[in-house]
Amino acid sequence: MIHFESDYLEGCHPRLLQALCESNEMQTVGYGTDEICEEARSIVQNLCGGTKVSVHFLVGGTQVNKTVIAAALRPHQGVLAADCGHIATHESGAIEATGHKVLTLPAVDARLTARGVDEYCAEHFVSATAEHTVQPGMIFCSNPSEWGTVYTRPELLDLRAVCDRWGLLLYMDGARLGSALCCEQVDYDYAFLASVCDAFTIGGTKLGCLFGEVLVIRSESLNRDFRYILKQNGGMLAKGRLLGVQFRELLRDGLYLEIGRRENELAMMVKEDLTRKGYSFLYDSCTNQQFPIFPNGLVEKLSERFVFSDNGPTDADHRCIRICTSWATKKEDVEKLLSDIPAH
Amino acid sequence: MIHFESDYLEGCHPRLLQALCESNEMQTVGYGTDEICEEARSIVQNLCGGTKVSVHFLVGGTQVNKTVIAAALRPHQGVLAADCGHIATHESGAIEATGHKVLTLPAVDARLTARGVDEYCAEHFVSATAEHTVQPGMIFCSNPSEWGTVYTRPELLDLRAVCDRWGLLLYMDGARLGSALCCEQVDYDYAFLASVCDAFTIGGTKLGCLFGEVLVIRSESLNRDFRYILKQNGGMLAKGRLLGVQFRELLRDGLYLEIGRRENELAMMVKEDLTRKGYSFLYDSCTNQQFPIFPNGLVEKLSERFVFSDNGPTDADHRCIRICTSWATKKEDVEKLLSDIPAH
Amino acid sequence: MIHFESDYLEGCHPRLLQALCESNEMQTVGYGTDEICEEARSIVQNLCGGTKVSVHFLVGGTQVNKTVIAAALRPHQGVLAADCGHIATHESGAIEATGHKVLTLPAVDARLTARGVDEYCAEHFVSATAEHTVQPGMIFCSNPSEWGTVYTRPELLDLRAVCDRWGLLLYMDGARLGSALCCEQVDYDYAFLASVCDAFTIGGTKLGCLFGEVLVIRSESLNRDFRYILKQNGGMLAKGRLLGVQFRELLRDGLYLEIGRRENELAMMVKEDLTRKGYSFLYDSCTNQQFPIFPNGLVEKLSERFVFSDNGPTDADHRCIRICTSWATKKEDVEKLLSDIPAH
Amino acid sequence: MIHFESDYLEGCHPRLLQALCESNEMQTVGYGTDEICEEARSIVQNLCGGTKVSVHFLVGGTQVNKTVIAAALRPHQGVLAADCGHIATHESGAIEATGHKVLTLPAVDARLTARGVDEYCAEHFVSATAEHTVQPGMIFCSNPSEWGTVYTRPELLDLRAVCDRWGLLLYMDGARLGSALCCEQVDYDYAFLASVCDAFTIGGTKLGCLFGEVLVIRSESLNRDFRYILKQNGGMLAKGRLLGVQFRELLRDGLYLEIGRRENELAMMVKEDLTRKGYSFLYDSCTNQQFPIFPNGLVEKLSERFVFSDNGPTDADHRCIRICTSWATKKEDVEKLLSDIPAH
Repeated sequence: MIHFESDYLEGCHPRLLQALCESNEMQTVGYGTDEICEEARSIVQNLCGGTKVSVHFLVGGTQVNKTVIAAALRPHQGVLAADCGHIATHESGAIEATGHKVLTLPAVDARLTARGVDEYCAEHFVSATAEHTVQPGMIFCSNPSEWGTVYTRPELLDLRAVCDRWGLLLYMDGARLGSALCCEQVDYDYAFLASVCDAFTIGGTKLGCLFGEVLVIRSESLNRDFRYILKQNGGMLAKGRLLGVQFRELLRDGLYLEIGRRENELAMMVKEDLTRKGYSFLYDSCTNQQFPIFPNGLVEKLSERFVFSDNGPTDADHRCIRICTSWATKKEDVEKLLSDIPAH
Repeated sequence: MIHFESDYLEGCHPRLLQALCESNEMQTVGYGTDEICEEARSIVQNLCGGTKVSVHFLVGGTQVNKTVIAAALRPHQGVLAADCGHIATHESGAIEATGHKVLTLPAVDARLTARGVDEYCAEHFVSATAEHTVQPGMIFCSNPSEWGTVYTRPELLDLRAVCDRWGLLLYMDGARLGSALCCEQVDYDYAFLASVCDAFTIGGTKLGCLFGEVLVIRSESLNRDFRYILKQNGGMLAKGRLLGVQFRELLRDGLYLEIGRRENELAMMVKEDLTRKGYSFLYDSCTNQQFPIFPNGLVEKLSERFVFSDNGPTDADHRCIRICTSWATKKEDVEKLLSDIPAH
Repeated sequence: MIHFESDYLEGCHPRLLQALCESNEMQTVGYGTDEICEEARSIVQNLCGGTKVSVHFLVGGTQVNKTVIAAALRPHQGVLAADCGHIATHESGAIEATGHKVLTLPAVDARLTARGVDEYCAEHFVSATAEHTVQPGMIFCSNPSEWGTVYTRPELLDLRAVCDRWGLLLYMDGARLGSALCCEQVDYDYAFLASVCDAFTIGGTKLGCLFGEVLVIRSESLNRDFRYILKQNGGMLAKGRLLGVQFRELLRDGLYLEIGRRENELAMMVKEDLTRKGYSFLYDSCTNQQFPIFPNGLVEKLSERFVFSDNGPTDADHRCIRICTSWATKKEDVEKLLSDIPAH
Repeated sequence: MIHFESDYLEGCHPRLLQALCESNEMQTVGYGTDEICEEARSIVQNLCGGTKVSVHFLVGGTQVNKTVIAAALRPHQGVLAADCGHIATHESGAIEATGHKVLTLPAVDARLTARGVDEYCAEHFVSATAEHTVQPGMIFCSNPSEWGTVYTRPELLDLRAVCDRWGLLLYMDGARLGSALCCEQVDYDYAFLASVCDAFTIGGTKLGCLFGEVLVIRSESLNRDFRYILKQNGGMLAKGRLLGVQFRELLRDGLYLEIGRRENELAMMVKEDLTRKGYSFLYDSCTNQQFPIFPNGLVEKLSERFVFSDNGPTDADHRCIRICTSWATKKEDVEKLLSDIPAH
């Protein structure tokens, strides 16, 4: 079987594995206060350009989302997210377990819109009975979104403006950020994100790490005492240097973006070939997840040789599937897949 | 500098590193449902003998403690722990953040006593105003304890009996379990623990893993839907097989106990030599952490060449330090340390 | 000004006030364990017929909802509610603050449907990734609903069946239960509710009490240690007998239903008159809240003499308003209101 | 039987009952935004002198404590309390249910000392591993304390100074504040408390109200959005004016202090008589709770005619009992009690 069902099927990129092997016998202090983590932090800070940021390394995505939200909000505040947003649908109530409501807004192409947020806040903050409802305190956006779409520079500037208008924090979950930063529609970089977001993540698990998410925090009030809250949420890895080793390697010379570029190229091969063959897509993704709609018969036939995610029926005769590319995806496997898919 | 300050200074045991390297390119599903984790689960279940248990793999200790406690208790219940217990002192409020109070009891040699628990429960459950206080619902015990002491077989049977009497769950944090199981005072094994505890952990981080704790659950009601709660607490690793790979290697042929044995041997070298030289210890530890009391001058002098933890003054002229041995500690380094310590 | 904006504008029904005055000097123990509360409990238990139930008295609605939900659910579970349900929209995140997600379903006439719940559960419980989402553990329904509609006997039996199928608890918020029980569409009583719900409330605040909600619990597992959780949620009134005094008076000879009947009669006067005059209603309410749709001009004009709630525009020229009747509403005031409203 | 077991055995002071009766038919808006509450708020603000404060009315003590603490602390912070403090022992885990640890310090005469707090903070904030523990964020002190002792003016100024040094908030639970303010050792008033505390309560339940606690908040950051958090914690009474009516009456002309004075006088009758007769007391209380130590035989004999709380044995032959006086205690009942107690 050839696998396309996710971008975290393998261990880590060979360069990261080598770095882990080489540093294995080294002795360091724990909890991310070692010199390797310090180096990795410096690299991230440099990538963020002139903006002063704090950098933390966490193991996983649920963890980073719940920790940031818990640290950011007062008890009566909730976090605004697209209705398809990860924290609204797939965190097993992790956000609510920290005491906070996820306030969902209708997504447009799986993204929040500044206008939607603005209208929600305008209605909330002028209401005479606002105090009987949950106050929005933060925006959560995934970039790329859960459906592979990305936020453009003007969209992010608009979200920033609406955050400033209503006193919200802007937090971006970049679990697949490398793929977003390397796609054609995106003309910004880490430094832009550092200037526009109060906090964002650079996801490693889905781009070549064994595990790990970089959390970049610009907001000083959010960052105050953050490591206590990290520890409280089980997010402080004893051998924290494992995160430092991986991210130092991934970010020091652009390997992260190289991985993003490569997986996007393979995804575009899929997108262009299927478009040419007459298939449509549930969303117009420009990143490493593609969501083509196939006749049921084709889905069945492909399943004999390939593994992919099934996103359910779009009508009685068709289904949407997800095809993921990763650092480890082989070009010839993509070619095999495409050659098994006839014109529509 | 030669390091003795903790047992998680290095990466992982070479055999584990090799196993991680060999499996790196392998493709598996995520979240611990892969075949390697299944194999590792079977190994643990076999070690637990006739008792039917469920097995989960988590990344870290805070995580496993908060997840088990959150899963086990109803809102009005608290967890009984020794006043020096890890969850009472060193988890940054992680337990309280799940909504539960840590009810502390005076420790005897850093351990809970069945009698102490029994008296506490007797007082609580007969009180006419019990409902105005927190109901004990679980016992938390560390084995080895925070001070290196271990629970004996009769002590654990007594704790089990007191749990049965009052309807409490018995949970053992085995962050350094390998060291406990290999020390002279201990005549029990995994199977005994599986029969006596409702849940216990087999700690990997401090015994040769990059990271990882095995959680063994006997109680069916505790285990029901446990994976939801695991996910909610950020404890479900995307590439879960990393835990499976490590624990399969560590537990399949006794490597875990071999590591425990070796670090105990080195610790006993320290203990015997210092005892012979006339030093006393804060606690009579039989495991890989030793807590000798040294004159301030000696502490200062040793600090020039060695690193260890400082547990603070015991009187105006003496301090207690912690010396830790690990899988990676070199015998010659222990010898160097001891040769620098004169007779008292 | 004549007030119709809510049913809690005044203090309490004169009979309750008298009972409070008469018992004022009496000495009782606190926290609801006194003999008056015991009497009131017996009365409620008798009203519940053959079903064995436990009875608790709480001060307010938010309190009772959060306490029941906290007591009922394990950490990974959420509560299903109509999207217009009180706990989904108007509790300031009180439910999330107990750690639980409110899972909303599209309401039909402001009510949950058994079918909607069944489909949601079917999708959840068969999903291979269920554990990445929140597990439904309880149904919350308001009766009357937030829009004045009521559940019929068959609808409640269907909800019961779907609860049994999926292992959910059924909880009914009866903040205005007296109005529901006295409306024409309803052919059931307390005893039926006790047999069909795991828990339900008999609301006092909106039907003649100074404050107070009766909580009736049939589920023994939910009721276990409930008073601890009551206390923990700040729901245990020191002078608990104030609740006992009021509910004893309200429920001993049918005063509660008399109040419900009377406020429904006045509400039906409004409904029939406005229907005759050609106005439509946002919802077809048979209880003490009526939601007519008026031209903006009429709303403005009425506002000079009457106070009511404004539920916002239904189109550019019309608004929906809420008219509430209560135990204290005077018939002549309703007549004044209606005489000021011309035919449409 | 003659009752001395608590100060909340009866309903409310006759003047409050009359005020409730007179205002019963009045129509007001809900949730404490009515004109009566506004008047009561003004009265409290005037009592607080030059200090600008916000005033909220809540139903009960557990509620006010958990709401203030939840509003004040970030997730990693805990609240410092005396080990005998109400929130440490008698709130059924209400504080922990909001996610926060109660950090206990040894009490001196049931009070926190500035020195104890200072040492705790000094140790915490200089520690290299502070982030692995709970950060103190607030001081909770009861005045009078749980054992009837009071804080002196210099003690409170010292607590204020230590709060300023370490960035803590100072919160005083004044459940029986009227008794404290009227006792001989106390030379301060509401205005002083408003200037020295970030928040404090003026308790009504135990001084003549049916129920109710005034919460006075000086800290602007604590007060921001406080009403959302009030609502979230179930602390917003629908007919909020019931609190306004009571506190307006209680505070407008000094009735509150009159009650405090009277109950203190009766308590001093007890104290002086028993002292003269040779009995000792567990604590040297100057307020309305007295804790004499009696021979077991005397306790048994008195129990035939009188009811009081039993605080348990002080040795094999003696017990400590609690005698409470209240607004409703009759002087002749105190005389009867004392005449039944022989010289020691």
